[in-house]
Amino acid sequence: MPHIDLGNDAPGIPGLLRYRPDTGRVLSELAEVLLRGPSTLSRGERELIAAYVSTLNRCRYCSSSHGATAAAQLPGGTSTVADACTDPAAAPISGKLAALLRIAAAVQVAGTEVGEADIAAARMAGATDAEIHDAVLIAAAFCMYNRYVDGLATALPADPAAYQESAERIITYGYAPMPAT
Amino acid sequence: MPHIDLGNDAPGIPGLLRYRPDTGRVLSELAEVLLRGPSTLSRGERELIAAYVSTLNRCRYCSSSHGATAAAQLPGGTSTVADACTDPAAAPISGKLAALLRIAAAVQVAGTEVGEADIAAARMAGATDAEIHDAVLIAAAFCMYNRYVDGLATALPADPAAYQESAERIITYGYAPMPAT
Repeated sequence: MPHIDLGNDAPGIPGLLRYRPDTGRVLSELAEVLLRGPSTLSRGERELIAAYVSTLNRCRYCSSSHGATAAAQLPGGTSTVADACTDPAAAPISGKLAALLRIAAAVQVAGTEVGEADIAAARMAGATDAEIHDAVLIAAAFCMYNRYVDGLATALPADPAAYQESAERIITYGYAPMPAT
Repeated sequence: MPHIDLGNDAPGIPGLLRYRPDTGRVLSELAEVLLRGPSTLSRGERELIAAYVSTLNRCRYCSSSHGATAAAQLPGGTSTVADACTDPAAAPISGKLAALLRIAAAVQVAGTEVGEADIAAARMAGATDAEIHDAVLIAAAFCMYNRYVDGLATALPADPAAYQESAERIITYGYAPMPAT
């Protein structure tokens, strides 16, 4: 049960976005530009960074939700996502994406944990400055979203199939703010 | 020296906001609504939450910048901010603000660290649901901003007086996106 009365029964972050629509709109826009806006990283790759950081932060709602959205957009689907969230270096993903996940793991601990060697390894694997920037900002953003969702003790969906439905909605319509109900 | 070529010399987060204006605009809007938008918490109180979390995250740029902005808007100025960032319970701030800082400190560790007792203590001290919500989201947001600033190894200002100038600009004009230079 959430720590505060949200005035709605939506589990996870949708309940928070509806509770305070002015911050909800901006948080939705941030997810849209980071995870679906123009980028040389695919939407599936960016969702995987989000799912991986959410896994490291042990945020069940976000890791399940973004894991489902990543799986629906990556070769290998749920198996690839599960492997990458357990051990990126051994997962069937590109060397560039594995290197960006290493940077994301450092960001999850603290910004200062990102070392020159992490950046050099990502560049060697073909990552551009913009891709390194986006990996850092996506990882940082999910250190926010995860804390927001768990810090207010939002509920989990009663039916885990909700994550799949949410993934399909996001892939079709994006992270537009959800209408009030 | 930043990990990537930002194409500008602005220290701290302004350099990042200029590097990628589409995310910069949204990140600026989030700071504006959280720290300066309508709220029963004063702007100084909200800046103190930001400065405190940035101190816990050891982010020098953000703790200095938001510390200066908090000091300019709180009774007791820099002395109050220094005391609160060292030991909120002993600082000359309201019991409500001290309780919200305790919640913020829990969020800084992990969302799941926020306990029922923290929420109950904040309510006992007079905090509303909306104030608890905002304290959690401000703390979570600075876990993002801090990691973004340090994860890309942004520079510090050559002259520490820059933090004071930045505080005055923010108090006057807000967190509007900075024009490209």
